[in-house]
Amino acid sequence: MKQDKIPDVVVRRLPLYLRAVEDFYRKDQAIVSSSQLGEWTGFTPAQVRKDLALFGEFGKQGIGYDARFLHNKLREILGLTRDVSVGLVGLGNLGRALLHHNVRARMGTPGVEGDPKHWVPETLRIVAAFDVDPEKVGVTYAQVPVYHVDQLLGKSAELGLEIMVLAVPPDSAEAVAYECVKAGIKAILNFAPVNLVVPDDVKVYSADLTLELQSLAFYTTH
Amino acid sequence: MKQDKIPDVVVRRLPLYLRAVEDFYRKDQAIVSSSQLGEWTGFTPAQVRKDLALFGEFGKQGIGYDARFLHNKLREILGLTRDVSVGLVGLGNLGRALLHHNVRARMGTPGVEGDPKHWVPETLRIVAAFDVDPEKVGVTYAQVPVYHVDQLLGKSAELGLEIMVLAVPPDSAEAVAYECVKAGIKAILNFAPVNLVVPDDVKVYSADLTLELQSLAFYTTH
Repeated sequence: MKQDKIPDVVVRRLPLYLRAVEDFYRKDQAIVSSSQLGEWTGFTPAQVRKDLALFGEFGKQGIGYDARFLHNKLREILGLTRDVSVGLVGLGNLGRALLHHNVRARMGTPGVEGDPKHWVPETLRIVAAFDVDPEKVGVTYAQVPVYHVDQLLGKSAELGLEIMVLAVPPDSAEAVAYECVKAGIKAILNFAPVNLVVPDDVKVYSADLTLELQSLAFYTTH
Repeated sequence: MKQDKIPDVVVRRLPLYLRAVEDFYRKDQAIVSSSQLGEWTGFTPAQVRKDLALFGEFGKQGIGYDARFLHNKLREILGLTRDVSVGLVGLGNLGRALLHHNVRARMGTPGVEGDPKHWVPETLRIVAAFDVDPEKVGVTYAQVPVYHVDQLLGKSAELGLEIMVLAVPPDSAEAVAYECVKAGIKAILNFAPVNLVVPDDVKVYSADLTLELQSLAFYTTH
C-alpha cells in the first residue's frame, strides 16, 4: 500500500468508485463485480480491477468485491472516515451556490426510500467562509459563519481547515492562495481561471469551467 | 490525425496547453518549449510532447513549438475556431454564477497590458438559459435570454446549441439529460450529483464538487 505512489488519475477515479459501490450497497447488493463498477462509472472492468488492486487484494476472482468492505475501504483510502473541514473563500454567486450544496451534503447520502440505516454521513464539510465585503463578514450563510479574509490564517488553525475552496475573482486568486499556503493548507480547489503557483506539497485542482467546456467542445466536432 | 482515437485524458489536457501557449504568446514569446509548457501545466515535458505528437509533427526537436502556430492548431483541434453555442439549464445560485462567468468570458482573454491586438475572442458562449420558474422564464439574465425547459428541444435546434450545462437539482437531472439527448446534444457538463445514463455518442463531464473534494481529501492524509 504505497499510497504516496498512487497516480493522480487514479485518485480522481476513487470517489466515483465510492459513489458506485454506495449505490449498489444501498440497493442491498452484498457483492459487486468489476463489470458492474465499470458499467456504473464508465471505465473498463480491467481499469477498475487495476485501480483497486493498487490498494490491496480485496476482490475475489470470478466473484467480485464485498460491497460493504469496499465501501469502507474506499472511504478509508480517501481519508473520509474522519471529519475533513473545508474552508471557502469568496461569497459571490458561485460561493453561495457551494454553500447551498454544502447544506444538502451535510444531510448525508440518501438511503433506499428514506431508510435511515443506509444513510452515509458526510464527513467532508465547509465549516467556514471568508470574504472581504463588510456586508457579508460576520453573518452566517447557509449555517456557515463568514469571516474576513484577514482571519484566514488564524481560523484555519483554530478550526483545523484542511481543504480550501477558492471562489474568488481572478485578480485575488494568487494572493488568497498564498494565504492558504501560509496557513498550512495542502489541498486547494480553485474556481478562478488562473494558474496558481504553489509549493510541490500543495495539491491544486482547477475547477475552471472554461477548461471543461473547451474540452467538451472537442466532442462536438469529432 | 486519427482524432477519433484521442484518449479522453489527453482531450482534458488540451485546454491547459492552449491556455499555457496563449500566455506565452501574449508575452510575445514566439517559440515555446515542451519544458516551458510542462512547467506551466504541471505535466512532464515528455507527456506534453507525446500528447501534442498525436495531432502531427509540429514541434521542432531541440527548439520547440511556434507559439502562434500551436495556439491556432490547438484551437482548431478543440473546435474553437468557430462559434460554439452553449445552453444552460437551471438558474439557481450556480446557474447564475455560470452566467456571470459567461459575461466575463465573452470579453475574451485579456492581452498584455490591455493591448487589444493580443485579445483572443472567446468563441464558446452560453447563449440561452432554461428554467421552470415562471419568475425567471422570459427575462434576460446577464445578457442571456431565459426560456422554459419545455422549449429546450425547439430552441436547441433554432440556436444550434451544441453543449448543455446542467445546473439543476439532482431529482431533475435525469429528465433534463433525456431532453438534451432528444435535442441532439452531444456534450453535457453536469453539475448535479447524479450519474447520468446517456447513449454512447453523448459525452458527459461530471463537474460534481463532492467528487472533487473527496479526491482532494486523499491528499490531506497522504
